[in-house]
Amino acid sequence: MNKLSCVVLTSVLWSCAAPASQPQNDLLPSWNDGPAKKSIIAFVERVSKAGGPDFVDPAQRIATFDNDGTLWAEQPVYFQFLFALDRVKALAPQHPEWKNKEPFASIEKGDMTAALRGGEKSLAEVVAATHSGVTTEEFEIAVADWLAMARHPKTNQPFTKMAYQPMLELLHYLRDNGFKTFIVSGGGIDFMRVFAEKTYGIPPEQVVGTTGKEKFEIRNGKPVLIKLPEVDFVDDGPGKPVSIQKFIGRRPIAAFGNSDGDLQMLQWTCSAPGPRFCLFVHHTDADREWAYDRASSVGKLDAGLDEAIAQGWTVVDMKTDWKQIFEFAGNIQR
Amino acid sequence: MNKLSCVVLTSVLWSCAAPASQPQNDLLPSWNDGPAKKSIIAFVERVSKAGGPDFVDPAQRIATFDNDGTLWAEQPVYFQFLFALDRVKALAPQHPEWKNKEPFASIEKGDMTAALRGGEKSLAEVVAATHSGVTTEEFEIAVADWLAMARHPKTNQPFTKMAYQPMLELLHYLRDNGFKTFIVSGGGIDFMRVFAEKTYGIPPEQVVGTTGKEKFEIRNGKPVLIKLPEVDFVDDGPGKPVSIQKFIGRRPIAAFGNSDGDLQMLQWTCSAPGPRFCLFVHHTDADREWAYDRASSVGKLDAGLDEAIAQGWTVVDMKTDWKQIFEFAGNIQR
Repeated sequence: MNKLSCVVLTSVLWSCAAPASQPQNDLLPSWNDGPAKKSIIAFVERVSKAGGPDFVDPAQRIATFDNDGTLWAEQPVYFQFLFALDRVKALAPQHPEWKNKEPFASIEKGDMTAALRGGEKSLAEVVAATHSGVTTEEFEIAVADWLAMARHPKTNQPFTKMAYQPMLELLHYLRDNGFKTFIVSGGGIDFMRVFAEKTYGIPPEQVVGTTGKEKFEIRNGKPVLIKLPEVDFVDDGPGKPVSIQKFIGRRPIAAFGNSDGDLQMLQWTCSAPGPRFCLFVHHTDADREWAYDRASSVGKLDAGLDEAIAQGWTVVDMKTDWKQIFEFAGNIQR
Repeated sequence: MNKLSCVVLTSVLWSCAAPASQPQNDLLPSWNDGPAKKSIIAFVERVSKAGGPDFVDPAQRIATFDNDGTLWAEQPVYFQFLFALDRVKALAPQHPEWKNKEPFASIEKGDMTAALRGGEKSLAEVVAATHSGVTTEEFEIAVADWLAMARHPKTNQPFTKMAYQPMLELLHYLRDNGFKTFIVSGGGIDFMRVFAEKTYGIPPEQVVGTTGKEKFEIRNGKPVLIKLPEVDFVDDGPGKPVSIQKFIGRRPIAAFGNSDGDLQMLQWTCSAPGPRFCLFVHHTDADREWAYDRASSVGKLDAGLDEAIAQGWTVVDMKTDWKQIFEFAGNIQR
């Protein structure tokens, strides 16, 4: 075939791919047509309009998302902590010393009130003990097995079904418009990577989170990475911009969070010149999900809410902005 | 247009894109047709042949590259160290105390023999002092300015011209075949990110390196990240598989290095099941580049060379495998 006929065919064929007469499909069907949805679409169209004054090169279209409370639920408590509790029970036979050691003894007995008495230090101890002493590959299998079996205490759904439908649509919508989507979460990096690709379409190399120390070793002639019971870096609060710089190396143009732990990520994103977009998910739906903000022990949103109002960031009111919250139907609180 | 004519047109048009009768262009023109080039092409064709027994999903086609001595030269000394030396001179007016402090005093005087007397501890001190106390953005500008002005002491070329032409072709060839290319280097992550995208086509989020600690701060109402004079993680030797797990979260199927500092990265890559490819660049060309291996103080290749031979990894003999080494012509050693 000669070059000219190829060019002609290409132009004719173009009309198959993009019929100009049809209206564009709604790519955010679980969002009500309120100010939040409008602000998202306006921003995306602004930065992707070729030749427009606010056009952003696709390589710079970095969007970062918190995970707990932003992409999936975080009530009654962070799901990774429920994994840690189940793992204490699973590992107990290998740790007879836990029988006389708090908070492990109380967890084994199922007495959560006693288990939580030690506060954050206890919790950190539980996470360290249950997230170490294995190879990275063994840990991935443990998480995958747990996710396949475990059910949310309130909805009885697999935890990956606790992802927010409107946010899944938003992730797709951004990627369809040339954005590269990242998770930047206080959650454990090795934990999130097990489900992020399948659940959110975010590959492991775009998942940033809290890291534990790991060690390279040759075991029986085979190289392995061992997870150590020591925190490497906590990816929360002021740690989030630090992690963004370390892992991504450029400033996002859009950031999405739901708590004060995301405030610095949003400040870092939206304080630079050029078009920027910052959004907080505000948990306002006591029937279909949970309602909590300034006084919550999980996902507290207080200083962040003030700053969002002062800066004019988008605040999603879950109750009015989201048509549907989860893929499964029905209210959570009955 | 109806669906059927679109399908027909698409099949006809397909022949425009891929003319079956023409031979494939040589995508590695700076490589001689020796065993190294053959092994690369054989591997890439093996993993990308749809339906073949060794097909690897594109998402899993992760390739990691060391930088110094693998993608660009590292003689007479790591280029980043030359940057640090120039920066001591540039920063000296702000540091009167350096006049009486080694190794800074000797560097200012240009007496490198005296400056190097303190060994590695001194070198680390120079890097810490010259890579901290500024914001990440100020540091990026300093590196960019230096790269624009500085010249290699032997070739008088900009340092980015010291990239190896065959390796640039290899990076492109891999990406053309669905690979995602990463740098995993002992070099400073913030230093490399300044030129990696333009020089290698590798975006910041795919550059992994040694990290310094950084701190988020609000300065005059604006968030900044300050570089601290403290090492966070050294991405070398057994640190490389640890960094790969932390930053990428999956095991590469191909790894490229040139020194014992890359050995564990190659072991980690090539010890897993499935098709794997490991390659060492062996510096054998004393005329066109440099010849060094087992006894070199920079880029020592000793245990790595033994392991490569034992494991049957590809060893590039620069002298015989590379038709051209740099984009510029001529020998370096005259």
